[in-house]
Amino acid sequence: MNRRKRPRETTFHRRTEPGAAPGTLVADPQAPKPSIHVMAYGPEGAEERVVIDPQELSQLLGKWPVVWVNVDGLGDAAIVAAIGEMFGLHKLALEDVLNTHQRAKVEQYPDHLYVVARMIEQLDHRLDTDQLSLFLGRNFVVTFQERAGDCFDGLRDHVRTGRGQVRSHGPDYLAYALLDAVIDNYFPVLEKYGETLETLEDAVVEKPERKLIVHIHDVKRDMLVLRRAIWPLREVVQALYRDPTVLVSDESRLHLRDCYDHTIQIVDLLETYREVASGLLDIYLSSLSNRMNEVMKVLTMMATVFMPLSFVAGVYGMNFNPDKPGNMPELNWPFGYAMALGFMALVAGVQLYFFARKGWIGSLTPKPEPTNNKP
Amino acid sequence: MNRRKRPRETTFHRRTEPGAAPGTLVADPQAPKPSIHVMAYGPEGAEERVVIDPQELSQLLGKWPVVWVNVDGLGDAAIVAAIGEMFGLHKLALEDVLNTHQRAKVEQYPDHLYVVARMIEQLDHRLDTDQLSLFLGRNFVVTFQERAGDCFDGLRDHVRTGRGQVRSHGPDYLAYALLDAVIDNYFPVLEKYGETLETLEDAVVEKPERKLIVHIHDVKRDMLVLRRAIWPLREVVQALYRDPTVLVSDESRLHLRDCYDHTIQIVDLLETYREVASGLLDIYLSSLSNRMNEVMKVLTMMATVFMPLSFVAGVYGMNFNPDKPGNMPELNWPFGYAMALGFMALVAGVQLYFFARKGWIGSLTPKPEPTNNKP
Amino acid sequence: MNRRKRPRETTFHRRTEPGAAPGTLVADPQAPKPSIHVMAYGPEGAEERVVIDPQELSQLLGKWPVVWVNVDGLGDAAIVAAIGEMFGLHKLALEDVLNTHQRAKVEQYPDHLYVVARMIEQLDHRLDTDQLSLFLGRNFVVTFQERAGDCFDGLRDHVRTGRGQVRSHGPDYLAYALLDAVIDNYFPVLEKYGETLETLEDAVVEKPERKLIVHIHDVKRDMLVLRRAIWPLREVVQALYRDPTVLVSDESRLHLRDCYDHTIQIVDLLETYREVASGLLDIYLSSLSNRMNEVMKVLTMMATVFMPLSFVAGVYGMNFNPDKPGNMPELNWPFGYAMALGFMALVAGVQLYFFARKGWIGSLTPKPEPTNNKP
Amino acid sequence: MNRRKRPRETTFHRRTEPGAAPGTLVADPQAPKPSIHVMAYGPEGAEERVVIDPQELSQLLGKWPVVWVNVDGLGDAAIVAAIGEMFGLHKLALEDVLNTHQRAKVEQYPDHLYVVARMIEQLDHRLDTDQLSLFLGRNFVVTFQERAGDCFDGLRDHVRTGRGQVRSHGPDYLAYALLDAVIDNYFPVLEKYGETLETLEDAVVEKPERKLIVHIHDVKRDMLVLRRAIWPLREVVQALYRDPTVLVSDESRLHLRDCYDHTIQIVDLLETYREVASGLLDIYLSSLSNRMNEVMKVLTMMATVFMPLSFVAGVYGMNFNPDKPGNMPELNWPFGYAMALGFMALVAGVQLYFFARKGWIGSLTPKPEPTNNKP
Amino acid sequence: MNRRKRPRETTFHRRTEPGAAPGTLVADPQAPKPSIHVMAYGPEGAEERVVIDPQELSQLLGKWPVVWVNVDGLGDAAIVAAIGEMFGLHKLALEDVLNTHQRAKVEQYPDHLYVVARMIEQLDHRLDTDQLSLFLGRNFVVTFQERAGDCFDGLRDHVRTGRGQVRSHGPDYLAYALLDAVIDNYFPVLEKYGETLETLEDAVVEKPERKLIVHIHDVKRDMLVLRRAIWPLREVVQALYRDPTVLVSDESRLHLRDCYDHTIQIVDLLETYREVASGLLDIYLSSLSNRMNEVMKVLTMMATVFMPLSFVAGVYGMNFNPDKPGNMPELNWPFGYAMALGFMALVAGVQLYFFARKGWIGSLTPKPEPTNNKP
Repeated sequence: MNRRKRPRETTFHRRTEPGAAPGTLVADPQAPKPSIHVMAYGPEGAEERVVIDPQELSQLLGKWPVVWVNVDGLGDAAIVAAIGEMFGLHKLALEDVLNTHQRAKVEQYPDHLYVVARMIEQLDHRLDTDQLSLFLGRNFVVTFQERAGDCFDGLRDHVRTGRGQVRSHGPDYLAYALLDAVIDNYFPVLEKYGETLETLEDAVVEKPERKLIVHIHDVKRDMLVLRRAIWPLREVVQALYRDPTVLVSDESRLHLRDCYDHTIQIVDLLETYREVASGLLDIYLSSLSNRMNEVMKVLTMMATVFMPLSFVAGVYGMNFNPDKPGNMPELNWPFGYAMALGFMALVAGVQLYFFARKGWIGSLTPKPEPTNNKP
Repeated sequence: MNRRKRPRETTFHRRTEPGAAPGTLVADPQAPKPSIHVMAYGPEGAEERVVIDPQELSQLLGKWPVVWVNVDGLGDAAIVAAIGEMFGLHKLALEDVLNTHQRAKVEQYPDHLYVVARMIEQLDHRLDTDQLSLFLGRNFVVTFQERAGDCFDGLRDHVRTGRGQVRSHGPDYLAYALLDAVIDNYFPVLEKYGETLETLEDAVVEKPERKLIVHIHDVKRDMLVLRRAIWPLREVVQALYRDPTVLVSDESRLHLRDCYDHTIQIVDLLETYREVASGLLDIYLSSLSNRMNEVMKVLTMMATVFMPLSFVAGVYGMNFNPDKPGNMPELNWPFGYAMALGFMALVAGVQLYFFARKGWIGSLTPKPEPTNNKP
Repeated sequence: MNRRKRPRETTFHRRTEPGAAPGTLVADPQAPKPSIHVMAYGPEGAEERVVIDPQELSQLLGKWPVVWVNVDGLGDAAIVAAIGEMFGLHKLALEDVLNTHQRAKVEQYPDHLYVVARMIEQLDHRLDTDQLSLFLGRNFVVTFQERAGDCFDGLRDHVRTGRGQVRSHGPDYLAYALLDAVIDNYFPVLEKYGETLETLEDAVVEKPERKLIVHIHDVKRDMLVLRRAIWPLREVVQALYRDPTVLVSDESRLHLRDCYDHTIQIVDLLETYREVASGLLDIYLSSLSNRMNEVMKVLTMMATVFMPLSFVAGVYGMNFNPDKPGNMPELNWPFGYAMALGFMALVAGVQLYFFARKGWIGSLTPKPEPTNNKP
Repeated sequence: MNRRKRPRETTFHRRTEPGAAPGTLVADPQAPKPSIHVMAYGPEGAEERVVIDPQELSQLLGKWPVVWVNVDGLGDAAIVAAIGEMFGLHKLALEDVLNTHQRAKVEQYPDHLYVVARMIEQLDHRLDTDQLSLFLGRNFVVTFQERAGDCFDGLRDHVRTGRGQVRSHGPDYLAYALLDAVIDNYFPVLEKYGETLETLEDAVVEKPERKLIVHIHDVKRDMLVLRRAIWPLREVVQALYRDPTVLVSDESRLHLRDCYDHTIQIVDLLETYREVASGLLDIYLSSLSNRMNEVMKVLTMMATVFMPLSFVAGVYGMNFNPDKPGNMPELNWPFGYAMALGFMALVAGVQLYFFARKGWIGSLTPKPEPTNNKP
Repeated sequence: MNRRKRPRETTFHRRTEPGAAPGTLVADPQAPKPSIHVMAYGPEGAEERVVIDPQELSQLLGKWPVVWVNVDGLGDAAIVAAIGEMFGLHKLALEDVLNTHQRAKVEQYPDHLYVVARMIEQLDHRLDTDQLSLFLGRNFVVTFQERAGDCFDGLRDHVRTGRGQVRSHGPDYLAYALLDAVIDNYFPVLEKYGETLETLEDAVVEKPERKLIVHIHDVKRDMLVLRRAIWPLREVVQALYRDPTVLVSDESRLHLRDCYDHTIQIVDLLETYREVASGLLDIYLSSLSNRMNEVMKVLTMMATVFMPLSFVAGVYGMNFNPDKPGNMPELNWPFGYAMALGFMALVAGVQLYFFARKGWIGSLTPKPEPTNNKP
């Protein structure tokens, strides 16, 4: 895959046209069509369905303590609107569901909470974030995702099998568990970047190549994307466990506080990685300077050694008439040639001696171990 | 258009003379003459007029639930004063209307709010911001713009046709809709900068030319202008939905909160773009160093190869008398010439071998793909 | 005027000696002698006097609603003390009046406010700030300035002629008007710096000369001085319109809020200028690197072209005996000379072709237009 | 030990798998097995035991005013769970005990406090931090450490011998004493870094070698690790002495405030060290530039001196026919050779004189003392 | 004095051993022995004594309204403990007295305040800060200093002679006066640094030498030391005049507010100096680049001028047989030599002309005035 083709998270693409009335639901025509999946459960059991017509949902509401409606794909505004009406979701929130460039946020409406989180996705060579829209009501959780495929399969298993605590709690616990899964999913991605930075660190010291700077820049850029995703998510989780609302129980708040710790850890790691990446840049630049220094030393030594030698050779190539008095008697000396060569060798030798003393020659030979340099 | 001629937003031009009494209304003589456009509406209908004499406005006030007076052009202080008197607007606010270098702000007066926002305008090669002054009263909205042409045409259509919610709400909703239009208009401009940065990023890696640094500097500078415009606007919107005032209804506050999210998104993007632009600078500088390294390697290799060769040639150009013993016997050897050339070829070959091993020669040939470098 | 002689605002010079008792009034012996100017006014009229003996002031106090005593020059501690006693000013405040390195601040005393502001003064090649000490009481304003010459002449005219609102308001309005004049006086200075930065920006791109870095540094330094003056001033104005005190009326608070906006604008501009100046530094450094690159390219091309040529010439200058077999037969070829020259021309031509393809030659010719580079 | 093998604190390794139910206790299979050590004491005496089965602890609880259970090694989730149950510790807290990448934090549970701190450990060439989990209840302190070996031996002696105040106070004092020991242990490590920085500072001025930049980078990186450990610890201590809880007595709060001062001192030192390390980088880079300058001066002087000389020699090596008029009469002058040599010496002498005046020659000789450069 | 020997404030040296019980008083064995000096006074008179045995102090307590005990030297823990017991000082505070690396702080104990300040001391080539520990009670002030010699002699004179206000006020005023003396003592030191920076600024522009970077680094480092001393001191003074305590009277609070202004001024200056020092670094680095550019220009011009000349000389030094047709007819032309020299002169002249037009030659001659560069 070509670098230039890579979609960049830092670029922003247009939401609803400026001038559209607020609250207008317009779906992106290129978005995948929605598929609706419902899990309804209580301490005693669970029911699972794939739903085509949103109207089917009404049969489940009230029958089970918790109904979780998950919609993958936002390509049909009518379906989103229908679900919104059934659960009494606010129009402004639904508009945000369809405009998938929201920052993470939490909004209180009279009888439900609207939470936006950004899920990290790392495909082959791309870092991407998808928007998760979550509505938490008294007896339901509705989630909208941009496309199929998420990190909630473990949670679905818990609901199906009754393992874990999810079945014995209300929808607030489900919302917490969803957010926790989203946040935990950041860690493996960060791990990868940690390893990338280690590789780059070794490379930058040993062989400062031009492509490394692009690598480092890419890592810094991805850190920016991650930071833009995680910072507001941190505030979302904090708001959920702090702000007063009857929709979140005290026990779920304890769990959310734990979840908050994880967001802080991620923020911490991100900042550390950013500083390490900046440090790599410094090393890279100084390595470039070092290389330049070495190239220049080679040049300078060559010039310093050979220029005087060539000059001496040039002198004895002059055509002064040796018959005139005082003109180049050396040319007629026996062994003058050998003496000239010897003089040249002497000059070169003295210079090399001084270069060696200055440490220039040694510094050009590669050092076997630049390592183990800890205080 | 010449770069030097470009008006720069970062430069400030003088407002009312120091020493003038506060509250004095002085129009910029070069500003366009005002043209007054009125829309009056209610749930049942709407009326639209172009007004010459501000006194005509009194007929509309009270007749319709909402009267929106829009003034394009601030070239006549008397008209501004007349409108101000009719709607009971505060003198200090009117003075700010005419001094079009205000930051975005909101000011509460006893019976109206005064809001300043900066509208972005991107003409051909210029980024500019115009001042929008908005007065919100119980049954009116008065807006002043520096010149004709704005982003409110969609909104005007809604008023005329009754589409959307604007006709069924009060002036506070109109004020919200105006601010929303102003803010939404930032997005396409930011998109453009996002694309510019991508182009620059590719260019800076592939061909670090001198003009790129000026491009990058210009982008950073425009980001500064945008930040100076959007930061206070963000606070304005926040103040409108948070601060207690009877002029803004609860429903409008919900909409304003949504609007606030958009300002945060813009701020977020701006910060990201600023950091990306700074990163480009680092790449640019390191690319320059890399180029220099390569130039120096060419020079060093040429010198290292040819200096010894020339020296050898110089030696055999010396005029030592070959008749004297020990003087340059090589010159008389058969095939001495071929041996000398062969020796030179050997020296050059050994050096090139070492340069190749050091990787100097390879690094000078352009690499076809420096890409696909993702962790 | 020589640069080294320029008094620098960033340098601090000693206030009252460490160890002096607090509240001791000691005048700087080099400060100009005080000259006292009084304006007393009310809605009906105004009276103006130059006063020698502070005792004369008692005749005016109580006779007019507002008495404004302005003292230019702080060279006589006794006079300052006498005025202080007459108006009941606090000793600590008077001490600060004489120590003219105070930051802007506002201090509440039981029956008067003490305000310090720094007035900007731009003489020929110097940026300087003077201390304005202002006492606001129920029926008086007392101001102390370091030297004669200020930006209050417009205001004095208003008092004399009754134009503007100053005569119909109390001393709080006068205090506001004085501060407003001080703050408005920053704008023309900032305008100048804006123009300086534009000039520098053009220069730094076109001709990165050594003295530019000193220019940029000086601008940054002056920005520091201005920031040190305006930041606390901003807080002073905010404190005046927010903090509860009977000395400031509600209407004056409205005016002060307006004044506060101006300080924010100044702070905004300063920050922008600082960032622009930093950006200039980056451009400057990269321009230097670019220059170096170009110098190196010239050198490398000269060496690369002429070293092989000289080598060939050197070879044919060798003195191998052409009578021995295999020794330099070319020397005896007809047109061997022309062939050698042709070979050299070929070598040079091929090299120049490659340099041209690499873009080295083009990059050395000055580009006519580095401009119009907007996204 | 090889640099590349060094475990890096900045890398994060995976905690419980994403998708696991919260509150699940899973031990790291590679962690050492737990060994339980108990100290129970009161003003009158103390008892000490190594415990195998957590059930044995119940005999001590209630018998002594304070029971301190210390667990080294977290390799067995069952034992952690058993201890947790015995003391009524919250499941979420126990999960954090086993996931040893927590930031320092304090969490209030209904009847105990959960405190996490990071203990610094500096093995040979590694900086590492271990997690200390501390539960403070009404009559117990439970601590979990990742491995055996800690900084609490002094404290244990105090408990055994009754020295100090620990025996006469409750478990809150013990918790304080533990945190104080953890924090005091940072100082010797910081001292070492202080010394390392001094060594680096001298080295970087005297001999800017390539490995120094890696050293500096390592120090900066370790500072990051330390900062990540100490910043939240600072907040923990502050929360302990500020937040209301019956578990911490007023006297212990006084001690904690003292402890808080120490964390601030550490933070202070860290920031200073970071700035010093950044300063070293600047010196290093400028030293590199200086070196380059010196290398270039050598080259330039050699070229400047010898190029004209070689040119002159080349001119007199030309083969113009001296029999034709005007062609190289010098060659036939008596002492022409000596005159040519003299002319060359003159040229070289003048050049060297100018170089000496420019200060180039002097700057190449090493200066004996670059020191004692204080203002 | 050698640079390496200079004690560095940024290095931290060990306090009481980790593991020592808190509240243990251990004196540094190398610290000077304490000498106790007492001044007791009231509005009517004053008494002054040098005390050997702390028990003597009890005679003065209660006899005079204010007793000021000053202890110079902390080499004897027993004496500190005895004084502490006599005045009822808290053990934790006394421990901090002996550990002289405390940050400035204020701590409230039930019936006394404990204040730590750092006194600046600038010996020959060293910047150092000493710890002043001050206890303020209802009728006493106890101060501990690390060694003899302080900035309180002026204050002592006031007590002795009754000048100033100190005798007519309580111990809170004395405490204020002591802090004021400590803070005022920062000013002359800052002045010196201001002058140093001016000197460096001139030097860095005119002659960028290697040792300057070390100077600048030292100044930045000292600024760090000062900032670490003054920032917390600022908070101390603020806490003293804001926090409610019966120990500080309203009038002393007014004085402390004045004192607070001074700390702000110092902080302000420090920040300015730090920014100026950073700017110097930029100038220094760019000056280095400029120098390099100039060196390279000399080299390039020499090579560009002489390489073609030498080449031409080399061509006419070739030994082609002039008897063969077409071979070097120039050698036999009359005045061929003169023509060759003329051709060389022409080549050199054209090149020099182009160099002059490019501005290379002019830029190498030193400019007489790089000054007077103000906007």
